[in-house]
Amino acid sequence: MTFPPLREELRGVEPYGAPQLDVPVCLNVNENPYAPSAKVVADIATAVAEAAVTLNRYPDREFTELREGLAAYLNSSGGSGIVADQVWAANGSNEVMLQLLQAFGGPGRTAISFAPTYSMYPEYARDAMTGWVAGRRHEDFSFDLEHAAALIAEHTPSVILLPSPNNPTGTALPHDVIGTLCELAGDAIVVIDEAYAEFRREGTPSALELLPAYRNLVVSRTMSKAFSLAGARLGYLAAAPEICDALRVVRLPYHLSAVTQATASAALRHADELLGGVAALRSERDRTVAWLRAQGHQVADSDANFCLFGVFADRHAVWQGLLDRGVLIRETGPEGWLRVSIGTPEEMAAFQDALTDTLNHLLKKETR
Amino acid sequence: MTFPPLREELRGVEPYGAPQLDVPVCLNVNENPYAPSAKVVADIATAVAEAAVTLNRYPDREFTELREGLAAYLNSSGGSGIVADQVWAANGSNEVMLQLLQAFGGPGRTAISFAPTYSMYPEYARDAMTGWVAGRRHEDFSFDLEHAAALIAEHTPSVILLPSPNNPTGTALPHDVIGTLCELAGDAIVVIDEAYAEFRREGTPSALELLPAYRNLVVSRTMSKAFSLAGARLGYLAAAPEICDALRVVRLPYHLSAVTQATASAALRHADELLGGVAALRSERDRTVAWLRAQGHQVADSDANFCLFGVFADRHAVWQGLLDRGVLIRETGPEGWLRVSIGTPEEMAAFQDALTDTLNHLLKKETR
Repeated sequence: MTFPPLREELRGVEPYGAPQLDVPVCLNVNENPYAPSAKVVADIATAVAEAAVTLNRYPDREFTELREGLAAYLNSSGGSGIVADQVWAANGSNEVMLQLLQAFGGPGRTAISFAPTYSMYPEYARDAMTGWVAGRRHEDFSFDLEHAAALIAEHTPSVILLPSPNNPTGTALPHDVIGTLCELAGDAIVVIDEAYAEFRREGTPSALELLPAYRNLVVSRTMSKAFSLAGARLGYLAAAPEICDALRVVRLPYHLSAVTQATASAALRHADELLGGVAALRSERDRTVAWLRAQGHQVADSDANFCLFGVFADRHAVWQGLLDRGVLIRETGPEGWLRVSIGTPEEMAAFQDALTDTLNHLLKKETR
Repeated sequence: MTFPPLREELRGVEPYGAPQLDVPVCLNVNENPYAPSAKVVADIATAVAEAAVTLNRYPDREFTELREGLAAYLNSSGGSGIVADQVWAANGSNEVMLQLLQAFGGPGRTAISFAPTYSMYPEYARDAMTGWVAGRRHEDFSFDLEHAAALIAEHTPSVILLPSPNNPTGTALPHDVIGTLCELAGDAIVVIDEAYAEFRREGTPSALELLPAYRNLVVSRTMSKAFSLAGARLGYLAAAPEICDALRVVRLPYHLSAVTQATASAALRHADELLGGVAALRSERDRTVAWLRAQGHQVADSDANFCLFGVFADRHAVWQGLLDRGVLIRETGPEGWLRVSIGTPEEMAAFQDALTDTLNHLLKKETR
């Protein structure tokens, strides 16, 4: 051992995370640009004040009220008949994913996903000491079921982790793909990460609809995106009660603070208002996709509050050019592509101006 | 695989946690009986309201303000010269412990502690897929350095986990034991869990004093006990900056919500007031120990806000008798012993009455 005695696989690894830069227009971490209203803020403060009166006591370990609130919300958002026992929550969906891998992964087991996909997944697997296999998608980022079937047969994963819509491509999974995967998986868990589901386009279904059909299906959601609550760190899932029960074994006792429970429950009572920005963001997303295509860029079809566009010979130069112009986006996804989160119309106008200006500038440099 | 595909070692395991019962006098989970004052509650609500205005944004991943507040507090509570880079925090000290084991434990590595000790430790090890070895203490629960040295030599653990004061015995570790362990450990991490340190008796030192001397020493604390903030879930540690940096690799991004950061920072601004109950609890603890001894019970010397007493031929009957009389304590520790948390003078009077009554009742049954 050397000091500090870091595990072999962690040596030299940089902590995950987008740069935290102070920039006028932040379109890099898929936040919702619409802040909670004064009324919602006041109600959250009131709920926290009520909880704080007994803050010397441990919180409800089973967070029953919150689970009931989340179940009711899910039944209004693609689900039906979901009850509290089928709901689980944690500090962000990243803690939900870690718990899933702690329960169903671990040494000697494998989790699998299909790249390009959310870059945190391999880190969850690493932190849960679970083997990690990354398959691939079709060129257009749609799901390659044939390849997936072969990979599942080869590695017999215990967990399959798939975002829909996918991050960073925005690609949603059709029902038949999810159904086939649940069947191919056998007793393994199929996690459909619907962090961005509320932004899906008209006609794109939610995997919640398939819950009654597949006991090994887990559908995760978050309050960070559509709910405008990234700062509150509340991720959750719906699944068979046996799966939620299994998570109770690996969850740290009292993992959800009384303050977090109060905040999230208060927000759920204002779901309509908090979700009020979703329609505007969907329109703005579609306008952004159309504008980028009109400029001659490739853009992946998006069901999320971001879009992936390219292909640039030097994407870092484009990213840097935008940053120099006060617009922060994300250098992620396959080589040559960039991801922009959808902000307000003003922010997207700033993005368009900055991109146009950056590309003109880079073109001039090239032809000089 | 069977469904759900739980890891082998988790099968049949019950979720950890004391029973959540609705009882008039709760002396089972070492909570502080003194609730935050109306003024503190109002300030927490104000701080959360301020944070909630930008709750659509992710929180500060480095929680800089909170780390600074915690460092300042530690320097007033046994530490000196501790800076923010030496402080780490998470959702409860159980998450701190999990992160320590994720960074410095893992498959093929071993963590070690000395029983009887905190019953969650083996669960943290299990959740971080880390080998677990439990040594023992002397009969009087004091630390057996000779035995520990042999065990460390035999297992070369990468993490040594020791509470001081120990839970459930209340036994604090002397400086020379900690110093010797840090030397014996080599490059391994020695975690001194000081969850209850603020309750230590006059003359009992804090391990924080030893931080400058040993780079492999980690001292963890919590806001759950002395700070009356169990519901807020804020655990933290002080250690060498290299150790905090290592934890940044395994922490889930944005693990501390903006709401948690605001709540904890607000509470730290009221540290004097929140800690105001500590002196009363220390006196009440000493009175409880004296009373129990006067009744002829064995009681372990306690530097914490609880005490372990016994020895009962049928401790479950005693526990149940107390519960039947509206007093919930904890059936934990070595066979025959029970642990009672220190509450208000009224709660401890209720405990004394209930215990006297229970034992008289059991005695009558026996002699009938």
